[in-house]
Amino acid sequence: MDLWFTEYYTKNARFSIKIDKHIISLESEFQRIDVFDSYGFGRILALDGYLMLTEKDEFIYHEMMTHIPMAVNPNIHDVLVVGAGDGGVIRELTKYNYINKIDMVEIDKLVVDVCRKYLAQTACKLDDLRVHIYYEDGLKFVRSKYNEYDLIIVDSTDPFGPGEDLFTKEFYGNCYKALKTEGILINQHESPYYPNDALAMQKAHKKIKSVFPKALVYQAHIPTYPSGHWLFGFASKGLDPIGDLNTGWKTLGIKTRYYNTDLHKGCFALPNYVKELLKNA
Amino acid sequence: MDLWFTEYYTKNARFSIKIDKHIISLESEFQRIDVFDSYGFGRILALDGYLMLTEKDEFIYHEMMTHIPMAVNPNIHDVLVVGAGDGGVIRELTKYNYINKIDMVEIDKLVVDVCRKYLAQTACKLDDLRVHIYYEDGLKFVRSKYNEYDLIIVDSTDPFGPGEDLFTKEFYGNCYKALKTEGILINQHESPYYPNDALAMQKAHKKIKSVFPKALVYQAHIPTYPSGHWLFGFASKGLDPIGDLNTGWKTLGIKTRYYNTDLHKGCFALPNYVKELLKNA
Amino acid sequence: MDLWFTEYYTKNARFSIKIDKHIISLESEFQRIDVFDSYGFGRILALDGYLMLTEKDEFIYHEMMTHIPMAVNPNIHDVLVVGAGDGGVIRELTKYNYINKIDMVEIDKLVVDVCRKYLAQTACKLDDLRVHIYYEDGLKFVRSKYNEYDLIIVDSTDPFGPGEDLFTKEFYGNCYKALKTEGILINQHESPYYPNDALAMQKAHKKIKSVFPKALVYQAHIPTYPSGHWLFGFASKGLDPIGDLNTGWKTLGIKTRYYNTDLHKGCFALPNYVKELLKNA
Amino acid sequence: MDLWFTEYYTKNARFSIKIDKHIISLESEFQRIDVFDSYGFGRILALDGYLMLTEKDEFIYHEMMTHIPMAVNPNIHDVLVVGAGDGGVIRELTKYNYINKIDMVEIDKLVVDVCRKYLAQTACKLDDLRVHIYYEDGLKFVRSKYNEYDLIIVDSTDPFGPGEDLFTKEFYGNCYKALKTEGILINQHESPYYPNDALAMQKAHKKIKSVFPKALVYQAHIPTYPSGHWLFGFASKGLDPIGDLNTGWKTLGIKTRYYNTDLHKGCFALPNYVKELLKNA
Repeated sequence: MDLWFTEYYTKNARFSIKIDKHIISLESEFQRIDVFDSYGFGRILALDGYLMLTEKDEFIYHEMMTHIPMAVNPNIHDVLVVGAGDGGVIRELTKYNYINKIDMVEIDKLVVDVCRKYLAQTACKLDDLRVHIYYEDGLKFVRSKYNEYDLIIVDSTDPFGPGEDLFTKEFYGNCYKALKTEGILINQHESPYYPNDALAMQKAHKKIKSVFPKALVYQAHIPTYPSGHWLFGFASKGLDPIGDLNTGWKTLGIKTRYYNTDLHKGCFALPNYVKELLKNA
Repeated sequence: MDLWFTEYYTKNARFSIKIDKHIISLESEFQRIDVFDSYGFGRILALDGYLMLTEKDEFIYHEMMTHIPMAVNPNIHDVLVVGAGDGGVIRELTKYNYINKIDMVEIDKLVVDVCRKYLAQTACKLDDLRVHIYYEDGLKFVRSKYNEYDLIIVDSTDPFGPGEDLFTKEFYGNCYKALKTEGILINQHESPYYPNDALAMQKAHKKIKSVFPKALVYQAHIPTYPSGHWLFGFASKGLDPIGDLNTGWKTLGIKTRYYNTDLHKGCFALPNYVKELLKNA
Repeated sequence: MDLWFTEYYTKNARFSIKIDKHIISLESEFQRIDVFDSYGFGRILALDGYLMLTEKDEFIYHEMMTHIPMAVNPNIHDVLVVGAGDGGVIRELTKYNYINKIDMVEIDKLVVDVCRKYLAQTACKLDDLRVHIYYEDGLKFVRSKYNEYDLIIVDSTDPFGPGEDLFTKEFYGNCYKALKTEGILINQHESPYYPNDALAMQKAHKKIKSVFPKALVYQAHIPTYPSGHWLFGFASKGLDPIGDLNTGWKTLGIKTRYYNTDLHKGCFALPNYVKELLKNA
Repeated sequence: MDLWFTEYYTKNARFSIKIDKHIISLESEFQRIDVFDSYGFGRILALDGYLMLTEKDEFIYHEMMTHIPMAVNPNIHDVLVVGAGDGGVIRELTKYNYINKIDMVEIDKLVVDVCRKYLAQTACKLDDLRVHIYYEDGLKFVRSKYNEYDLIIVDSTDPFGPGEDLFTKEFYGNCYKALKTEGILINQHESPYYPNDALAMQKAHKKIKSVFPKALVYQAHIPTYPSGHWLFGFASKGLDPIGDLNTGWKTLGIKTRYYNTDLHKGCFALPNYVKELLKNA
């Protein structure tokens, strides 16, 4: 059977994955949620028709969001995760037994329910005792937090629809307040290649830079995201992702398939054209 | 009008670009050659239906093939380029005024003719006086060369069809002989993500490693190549791409849009899963 | 979301329908069964990836299979339907209150179960008391029947896979024996336009002609079948579809959306190129 | 190579043809003109991205526009063809040696030039001495004509863009005046299946009916037009397409691949749902 899921990167470029079965399709209060069985990419989650993850390469995104900050500050005990209903970031975080608390704020409970049921690969650690899930608006949740977290990971959708608030200056400001002195903010930072993504990347960077004294961008190869060139933001009150890299991270024995500490240093080295875009943000 | 050029990455994944016009389509002795005007990616060159380059992102591939070795050894004067009929590597090489000679061996004259006429963006320096074009089989050409080149760049198509010979152990052995003591071999090295590409990458790496004392792999983000995660091989008789990086490269004033010396160091830091594949090659 | 079901008419022509949801996907002993919710065509049934019906235009196929023979012989009381698990032909037959018995032989019970649950539009009359469903091989079922039916309707899939037997000379011969003197055999007869379909049409016609004294072909516009030009076979022991058309059919008050008695006469008038193909079968 | 031309029938249904080469692409004063070499359909002409004809099935359209009226009135000597720049209708008309004059009004000279050069299959008779080509607006041309033609064939594009005027009541009124007493107007009449086409069909029929005492619609199977179910209008000052069918047509010895006089009678027998749409126009 010839059934394809297609994502338009622009109106002139599209990527398509062959589908075996459409496992479930639901309309939540916030968005449409679809899970597919694909050929070659395992299960796939799409929100409002945008591909969120494939089982084949979600490890790249989730490892790069999690281990980069964890390897910079070895004293991260209290973590807030915003979005991330699929559980992938949580799964990576739970590999650190010295983390005490993981608050997860996901606006859409149905995403979590669907992932628990159909995406065990990512959702497998949502029941870890350290995890507290709040089905709330991320922006509102963070507003009331002061000096509470060592790490905030913003695993949002794109800056339109339900994820829009998580790209505002107000939100970044609230994250700053919610972080302790050695706090780190990580966010998915769109992509530099296609014009619309590049614009979103520039806007996000400009806002974060205006709030955090340190605001860098790092990259990873995520083949099923637009252009395969995806960016993340690393912002902190002072910690430097490379200068402060904890060389002891390797001794923790954490298994990763993408991340390693050499790549940690390498991934902050951006192409000139990306640096240019960020400078002109 | 709705006209799309599609490349199947596997039989279950495909990437499509919207086409405005099909500029030319020719059948040479070796392959079918097509040039398109696309929307959003400028002109596109396809050989035997495989996308070779788009004007939008060819700079990434060509810069990464050229400036990595040039920044390691500041005494590169004699260069051999195998394949590369589009001229992109030549364009980058001609930025170095201390290069004396660039031999280019391209089996298919028609590719060069088509690129001269329709792809000036890459072919613009093919008439540089240092460039000598040989329309011959690359494998045979290199066989008769001893201790002649400081750098060989193998800008081949994939390891089937006309490019097949350029992925053989015999060819790599001949390259070794053709290189001087400080010689470097660069080759396009396929991709680690999709199974078939990963296999080709492993095979190439295994062969190069058996010939060259130093054989590393580096990566770049090339959005219009399968998975966007593309690899290159750096092999040498001794020079190390990072240990021997010439910090003076920046003073040459060479303009690049992707390459820079930080990224030079970063691009050799590979993801664990890629390292694993190479180790098991 | 961009999800499309595509059917390749040949390897160079394809028709695609945008899908909202994949309602169910099952693998029976005989074939893969899929039901989709489409945009613009209502529910869709596919067997082994081939589109069997859409709610938007199944009335055309089912009316043309049923009312053509019913309007020729007003004394049809005993009917055999082979295949037709979706129930569309049954629905049309049950509009005739003077039909006494409808035997339906469908090899794949799962098709019937799925249609009962998800395709009420066609399956709505499967519980009519006159309907007797046999989950058996059509070829075997007919073998043991003599002089039993006034009408046999062969609503098969294409002549490969589970439907293959229903395109054999043996099967047509058995149908002949199973029919009474005034009996009529109707079968879906593929299409004259695309080469493979045309070949199947020719083969079927040749075989039927060798068994039945009267073997004609008629056509209908079915937009979601390959080429939109679909054919049906009308074979009998003597009755002529036009000469014997019962002008009283209109007085039965049967509601149809495609069929009428003018079109009845018109649909046997085939294009020259189709007549040529049939003559050369 | 994987290059496909796609036509969207609605936003939820599309038909695609595999392309070998894009022969030419030009922008005239009126529209974009593209010719392709396809696989399986021969050459293809597209105007503004809409498929106008394929060499594989253009005979159906052109025969049905031409021989239907020619077989009704054996005294057609003066013909006006509006649109039809590809020459297909002209080719069919020139098969009648008793036609004296064929005026052809095509607004876009470039279409004719392109077809002469790249579509000899249809354009082959444009130089017949009886043919007079006027590169003018069809609506204006007809305005000044009184009692001059026995037959007007309107071979227009769809009722938007350059073809828009040829679907107005004013145009039909002018055609009426331009026709002699036994005159016939034939026009391409869109399709009943997809909602937008059906609406266009209804609008055209309503207007023609308000101008001509006799206004019927007939159908043909044209696989590469939306739905494959295409309609034509037959309007006259009194001649009836079936009642006045000239049984002597066969003796003319005109070779056709689709048309024949049985099909002539059959093609006016429309499905109930089409009749309904026309009645409610």
